Amino acid sequence: MIGKLIDKIRETNAPVCVGLDPNLSFVPDYIKKEAFERQGETPGGAADAIFLFNKGIIDATYDLIPAVKPQIAMYEQFGIPGLTAFKKTVDYCHEKGLLVIGDIKRGDIGNTSASYAKAHIGEIEIGSRKFRPFDEDFCTVNPYLGSDGVQPFIDVCNEEDRGIFVLVKTSNKSSGELQDRVADNRPVYETVAEYVEKWGQSSMEKGYSNVGAVVGATYPEMGAALRKIMPHAFILVPGYGAQGGKAEDLKGFFNEDGLGAIVNSSRGIIAAYKKEPYSSRFDERTYADAAREAVKDMVRDINGNL
Amino acid sequence: MIGKLIDKIRETNAPVCVGLDPNLSFVPDYIKKEAFERQGETPGGAADAIFLFNKGIIDATYDLIPAVKPQIAMYEQFGIPGLTAFKKTVDYCHEKGLLVIGDIKRGDIGNTSASYAKAHIGEIEIGSRKFRPFDEDFCTVNPYLGSDGVQPFIDVCNEEDRGIFVLVKTSNKSSGELQDRVADNRPVYETVAEYVEKWGQSSMEKGYSNVGAVVGATYPEMGAALRKIMPHAFILVPGYGAQGGKAEDLKGFFNEDGLGAIVNSSRGIIAAYKKEPYSSRFDERTYADAAREAVKDMVRDINGNL
Repeated sequence: MIGKLIDKIRETNAPVCVGLDPNLSFVPDYIKKEAFERQGETPGGAADAIFLFNKGIIDATYDLIPAVKPQIAMYEQFGIPGLTAFKKTVDYCHEKGLLVIGDIKRGDIGNTSASYAKAHIGEIEIGSRKFRPFDEDFCTVNPYLGSDGVQPFIDVCNEEDRGIFVLVKTSNKSSGELQDRVADNRPVYETVAEYVEKWGQSSMEKGYSNVGAVVGATYPEMGAALRKIMPHAFILVPGYGAQGGKAEDLKGFFNEDGLGAIVNSSRGIIAAYKKEPYSSRFDERTYADAAREAVKDMVRDINGNL
Repeated sequence: MIGKLIDKIRETNAPVCVGLDPNLSFVPDYIKKEAFERQGETPGGAADAIFLFNKGIIDATYDLIPAVKPQIAMYEQFGIPGLTAFKKTVDYCHEKGLLVIGDIKRGDIGNTSASYAKAHIGEIEIGSRKFRPFDEDFCTVNPYLGSDGVQPFIDVCNEEDRGIFVLVKTSNKSSGELQDRVADNRPVYETVAEYVEKWGQSSMEKGYSNVGAVVGATYPEMGAALRKIMPHAFILVPGYGAQGGKAEDLKGFFNEDGLGAIVNSSRGIIAAYKKEPYSSRFDERTYADAAREAVKDMVRDINGNL
């Protein structure tokens, strides 16, 4: 699957993905009104609104980007209808030819991790039949439980040609509380990075592995160091834009082949119409056009700094 | 909420919870047949089968125990119908007066963690209305992202009188890969335990906090040490029975007041009918009676060793 992502990045010349994290406050009032008129102010109405909102964003950007990253929490908060909107979003992105990175941060042990892996990037057997419950192409995985927790995901990656991104160094302020603790002369996040490189050896395509890493744009020096520790891992980089990560800080996340990282922006794209420099040219009705402009600007910004 | 759990433990004299992790292979054939006849060999059929299976277990054990712990991965693997069965299970347990610990191991940052917290132990606002999407009483939380990731759950605990159990030292074999790394003269899991004790200070009831910890029965010496580091945290103890944890190892997880821990068993209870000493006395049709016997035996075993 990492080979497909590389092809799509080369095709679009855009090492970026759009975070489909549709906070209800980002959704234009006219979309909410339409959805609530049909379904009431209910989880079903909210789910309908966020799917319509996503559809606008996807239609306006799918030709510019290789992948999207829906954050499942933003759907799960609306319960069953919300998760149905998540699945509809995944399917619609696939129709449009986009790869889907499910930002699910799941992680458990043995059979339980295997269940999550089957749910999101694999298939389940029921009697004599097989189904793909959520059907993302990649998903994010939390490593706190160790190899027992991650290996079942890697097994599914190998069976189904899918990929994962393991949390290594997250973009948030307090990520260092555990991740930066220094044991045996190296911080915990570097230990995780070494595991990522090792776990990926059994799952290689086009010089990269199906086991990638999440490293926040907000920690550029750590990103550059981690790039060297995991030469075969693709790095999914959150934290660009709204969270404070800048394009000039991103160079170290990439390899010399210009590959090796994919930078995510969520709010900065999907809520672009609410903020300058877009808010003076776009409004609620043109939120998707604003997202398209913001994607173009982001791609230019990042490529200009590589 | 921890006060309610303490009351229920005292009432039942059973510091145990039953793990509702309904692997389809545990579900008797006659239940699967019934469900598949109605809905086909589909995720809907599988979800129906696991709910019927759970209902049997709950009906047979609810008067003996304070709480259940459904593992959401076992439901999520069947997609939307599976998660609907999860929600039905939570609601049915509440009807029967049981407390529900959602074993969801979620964890993200800021607004995203807040969305998970609202989804599982809180409520969401949609327009002028409020809803409780999954409505568990407690949930498990992964600490890898640090305080930014956990605090939004604690905020919801305080607003809604709910609780969480933070992963500290998990029961699996490879849990030590990250959790046991020694930084500043203490393993990472002890650092997490110190955070748990600190996080809990703002949310106390009856001498315990609404911020508990997960520590595996398979690591009894660490459990005893962690008990002292987190005097106010309730410990949720997985790993008893099928995973190898023994009752004589559990003493150190409890405080001198006989409280402070709740021991989970999943397979050992819900699939008791498949294994000795129950399989010679029970069969598929009496799987729930076997579960009741296994709960009684477990309570006797644990109380006899305190």
